Amino acid sequence: MQGQSPSDVIKPEVRRLSAYTLKHVKADVKLDQNENPYELPQDLKEEVARRVLARPWGRYPEFVPHSMIAALSKFTGWTEDGILVGNGSNELILAGLSVVLGSSCKAVIPQPTFTLYKLLSSVFQANAVSVPLNASDFSFNVDALEAEARDAAVTVICSPNNPTGVLLPASDLERILKSTRGLVFVDEAYHEFSGQTALTLLPSYPNLIVLRTFSKAMSMAGLRFGYLMAHPEIAKEIHKAKLPYNVNVFTLAAAELVLERPDVMRDAIQTLIAERQRMLAEVRKRPGVEAFDSCTNFFLFRTRKVARELFEALYAQGVLVRDVSSYPMLERVLRVSVGKPQENDRFLSALDRALEIA
Amino acid sequence: MQGQSPSDVIKPEVRRLSAYTLKHVKADVKLDQNENPYELPQDLKEEVARRVLARPWGRYPEFVPHSMIAALSKFTGWTEDGILVGNGSNELILAGLSVVLGSSCKAVIPQPTFTLYKLLSSVFQANAVSVPLNASDFSFNVDALEAEARDAAVTVICSPNNPTGVLLPASDLERILKSTRGLVFVDEAYHEFSGQTALTLLPSYPNLIVLRTFSKAMSMAGLRFGYLMAHPEIAKEIHKAKLPYNVNVFTLAAAELVLERPDVMRDAIQTLIAERQRMLAEVRKRPGVEAFDSCTNFFLFRTRKVARELFEALYAQGVLVRDVSSYPMLERVLRVSVGKPQENDRFLSALDRALEIA
Repeated sequence: MQGQSPSDVIKPEVRRLSAYTLKHVKADVKLDQNENPYELPQDLKEEVARRVLARPWGRYPEFVPHSMIAALSKFTGWTEDGILVGNGSNELILAGLSVVLGSSCKAVIPQPTFTLYKLLSSVFQANAVSVPLNASDFSFNVDALEAEARDAAVTVICSPNNPTGVLLPASDLERILKSTRGLVFVDEAYHEFSGQTALTLLPSYPNLIVLRTFSKAMSMAGLRFGYLMAHPEIAKEIHKAKLPYNVNVFTLAAAELVLERPDVMRDAIQTLIAERQRMLAEVRKRPGVEAFDSCTNFFLFRTRKVARELFEALYAQGVLVRDVSSYPMLERVLRVSVGKPQENDRFLSALDRALEIA
Repeated sequence: MQGQSPSDVIKPEVRRLSAYTLKHVKADVKLDQNENPYELPQDLKEEVARRVLARPWGRYPEFVPHSMIAALSKFTGWTEDGILVGNGSNELILAGLSVVLGSSCKAVIPQPTFTLYKLLSSVFQANAVSVPLNASDFSFNVDALEAEARDAAVTVICSPNNPTGVLLPASDLERILKSTRGLVFVDEAYHEFSGQTALTLLPSYPNLIVLRTFSKAMSMAGLRFGYLMAHPEIAKEIHKAKLPYNVNVFTLAAAELVLERPDVMRDAIQTLIAERQRMLAEVRKRPGVEAFDSCTNFFLFRTRKVARELFEALYAQGVLVRDVSSYPMLERVLRVSVGKPQENDRFLSALDRALEIA
């Protein structure tokens, strides 16, 4: 192996990738990961701990957690044999893409969107085709998506989209679903904030895959739980590539309890939506600041400042947001998650000062 | 899409696969999954629960859990930038294979062995080449492995092997490592029971990948934790395909505490090894029963009975073992995990009765 690098054996598509990474920095006011600042109720958390302590840790979880899937079926109305659960929806994205994508396949992905889809498409050596959002309002370019989806193995729609917060209307989604025989992944990570879901289209479109997570509205980002809904024939195939025992006993106990009390975060979600609207209105009062409508628990805003400098000026005041300015069409744009009212006030004051000094 | 199946879009290699599955059946004496029957100490478990309750659940785990990786580095002596952690070692097997295997690649896999390697190789459309174990004692066919590894992208060695319990001697592993530029995955899921590790070869062989789990000896099967050690350049590439936030806060807390008390399962491991030897000697006293030496917490035994019938006769008495008779060369063979002494006695009595009636 002289004169060669150990990594020569790695796929060139992987070697060319930058790792999806995030420097984990501490901050007084953490508004960088679209987390829910409201925790699950303490009594629920203590009940989870009790149930987990009452169960052997040395024993594997069920191969398929049937009672959890039954609860999700009841909660969503979708058939049990069309539901898969995962260690976060990320794992189900991975499994779903892996059963379709190979070196001769096309994956259609709006840009900018959640990074993982393009990264994994590259790992699977697929031809990842980017379809830019409309620059004016970050809406989806439905004509372009429809055209590109025709011969695609996979089309990805994060709706509402991250990092832009924009929904794809159901009628537009149907146009795309009708145009392709490939799988259409609709990632609804933020659906609870939008009041819209593609779930009702599942019976009509066997090429539709709906992904959901408990990491955002359900305030379980630290626990990792997600689920996938699809036609049972498709779910059966994705299941083959899904790792066994993937959801640990602690997360299963927590998710089960949340499904027994599905309204447990309802008030928090309403507060976050109201706060998002208040923040948007406030930010828009600042001269030179443009803020973008959002159906999620975060939003984008553009200023005249260099994004990195504004980011640093906010962080110097203890407020951590996400610098998304390296994404296509997001120059001078930052993303801020909606926090508790007091945190949002801290952000607004910090923004005022940062706009002065940055 | 009339007249077509929704799953036509799925890779043919995946459609041809049977899902890796296991019917989860309850039993008084559960000796089917190579679990550790001894639990982590109660005080450790309660401390895990306390730490987790003191931490917000709505916040993501660290992107890369640095303190955990530092603890693993201290524990193993391997460099921090060559260590990755996962939601069970399965996840790291998946990530490791995904950065190398595509449709034009060869994966060399002894048979029988842990099912996941061949299954995932098929998902990645690789050419999975089986190298049968030596039928007499289930040892590895080193000549054949060395020859096949030469032009392989991946060679898999589970050592000790599952379901056979046999080790690959270090000198034989070196022969294979020297013969190939491809990656050699050494899965050490059961290394604590064998007293052998490939860890010492890591500095010399940048194509070596060592995988470990806390699911077996460390009694954390319900929590899902594994780690991978490799040359930092290789670890960096595998890291790109590894999902972010993959280890949840509960599992991180438990694994951290176990690493603070690495000897916590030592006595249990010694008891299991002694019990394995006692069971082997006992089983061999039964006429017509052949039992195979093992370096793990399980072993194989062959009888004159039809395996499924013997399995059912044991299960009817509350003793659950694993029917491995559908694996190549394992006709009439069952696998039994080592339990607590009393459970093992139950197994031995049940076996006596089953041999009479089955």
